[in-house]
Amino acid sequence: MKEILAYYRDDLAAAEEIINGNIHSTIKVIPELSSYIFESGGKRFRPLLVIASAALCGYRGPKAHVAACVAEYIHTATLLHDDVVDESDTRRGRASANNIWGNEASVLVGDFLLARAFQMMVQNLDSQSLQVMAQACMHLAEGEILQLLKSFDVGTTVEDYYSIIFGKTAALISACCEVGALISGEEGARREALKRYGQEIGYAFQIVDDCLDVVGNPEKTGKPLGNDLKEGKLTLPILLALERSTREEKKKVRDALLADEFKPQLFVQVREVVEKYRGVEQARERAREHAARAIEYLEVFEDGLEREYLIAMARFIVERDM
Amino acid sequence: MKEILAYYRDDLAAAEEIINGNIHSTIKVIPELSSYIFESGGKRFRPLLVIASAALCGYRGPKAHVAACVAEYIHTATLLHDDVVDESDTRRGRASANNIWGNEASVLVGDFLLARAFQMMVQNLDSQSLQVMAQACMHLAEGEILQLLKSFDVGTTVEDYYSIIFGKTAALISACCEVGALISGEEGARREALKRYGQEIGYAFQIVDDCLDVVGNPEKTGKPLGNDLKEGKLTLPILLALERSTREEKKKVRDALLADEFKPQLFVQVREVVEKYRGVEQARERAREHAARAIEYLEVFEDGLEREYLIAMARFIVERDM
Repeated sequence: MKEILAYYRDDLAAAEEIINGNIHSTIKVIPELSSYIFESGGKRFRPLLVIASAALCGYRGPKAHVAACVAEYIHTATLLHDDVVDESDTRRGRASANNIWGNEASVLVGDFLLARAFQMMVQNLDSQSLQVMAQACMHLAEGEILQLLKSFDVGTTVEDYYSIIFGKTAALISACCEVGALISGEEGARREALKRYGQEIGYAFQIVDDCLDVVGNPEKTGKPLGNDLKEGKLTLPILLALERSTREEKKKVRDALLADEFKPQLFVQVREVVEKYRGVEQARERAREHAARAIEYLEVFEDGLEREYLIAMARFIVERDM
Repeated sequence: MKEILAYYRDDLAAAEEIINGNIHSTIKVIPELSSYIFESGGKRFRPLLVIASAALCGYRGPKAHVAACVAEYIHTATLLHDDVVDESDTRRGRASANNIWGNEASVLVGDFLLARAFQMMVQNLDSQSLQVMAQACMHLAEGEILQLLKSFDVGTTVEDYYSIIFGKTAALISACCEVGALISGEEGARREALKRYGQEIGYAFQIVDDCLDVVGNPEKTGKPLGNDLKEGKLTLPILLALERSTREEKKKVRDALLADEFKPQLFVQVREVVEKYRGVEQARERAREHAARAIEYLEVFEDGLEREYLIAMARFIVERDM
């Protein structure tokens, strides 16, 4: 990853400048709250994907930086609205914005970022990119709503899980890669290939995130373990373990999910079941399959550093521990 | 108003069909919650303005119906997010959506409507209309944030009040009229005139709304009296009265605003001060001035039914009791 970040350093710096430079407002809380989020060590994964996808199609320049910023704004708006929904106290290892500024400010600054993203897109991107981003925003909202509906639902299926993560994660990541192609003037098979690559690494990304919630190191991930369970989310490692568990074990998971109050002991109880059936290993295996499929889609592109880096990113996503 | 609604009946019906026809989703709560809002007797004031403005510029057709729907979606998303912010229990005389479906669903269905509006705009409107709408969304978010910051703030000034209502109300109404011009191919003085007309009636509209919160008939407005004060908002009738009130009266208002718990008696106390200094009458007078200015802007248009109707709407806004 270090090599990739060095290769795209100037582009990432340009995107970063746009990210920090477009949150000005006469209303101080907007730049304050926004900077707090942008400085809290997000991975800038979506901006990097826009830039690297455009570069793979032969374009490096300002349109990629604007599109990168747009993707980060949309993503951040989702986080802000998500924290309100989840009533989260922490995000990336720090107090969440809603915890400091209140739910109201989080909702409204999220709306501000969406509006700014919309405005920047309209001013800088082509009509096809706009449509791709608009569609991704629809999927995002749908994914979040589905997740809300399925929270604390012991009947959640693997299929439900995939619908949720398609909406909340894969759709926007896919759009980042597709827009990278579009701003480079690619409209045919290469655009389609990047779109599909993005979708597959999006799945892989979320699945690994959900694995890290069960077995990760909170100091590296910045999130407390068992947070998903606390928020009522049944994720892939748990769902896969449940498929093979005994009735008694299913009851254990159910009791933990539906407990009046979340206690760390409940999570330990669930993790025992997940460990017994190797739920995390199985989920990671699925993530690896998605990454492998993503890499296959890149075969339409000629060999070169830009392609190597996207391949490396797909592999990194699966093996990361943070 | 009846005559105007009859004149634009077909256009309004077409817009209504688009409004109800674009909330479908595999996720049932989206159409459910959205229909609940759309059926709750909104005045469709923004759609009518888009249609009437376009008609004044000589255009009646599908673009106006789509733009009308977009405006209503954006407005509704704001209401949904606003109710979460205000923790409102009622909206238009019925239980508010967040009260039935929860804050989370209100935030996310609001996001869905914004995304759909964005998508419909991108697919149907020209780039200039997109920019106008994007700008309006920015102002909306800023206005809502400013309102939040100034809530329960006894130092709120008339200038603050105008900044708030510009963002939360006048900007979108102005955009509706401006987009009406743009989709008709008007880009010069007539576009500017409609933009300014919209801004002025937007001010008038919100000022009258705020007057009705002090002296309206809840059965007609669908809102309990004194709701603004309860939510910590100091509106124009109160602010104008405060300018001339005694120290003791100022303290009364301050105590009512900052009381630990809102009680109807507190509102009565404030209303006495407002009545003594004729705050409502003064505010209504200002609304009339805005309406008069709005009507002046229409002088660049030739005489005719379409112009008469926009003039009548400006007058209606000021004199309405609902």
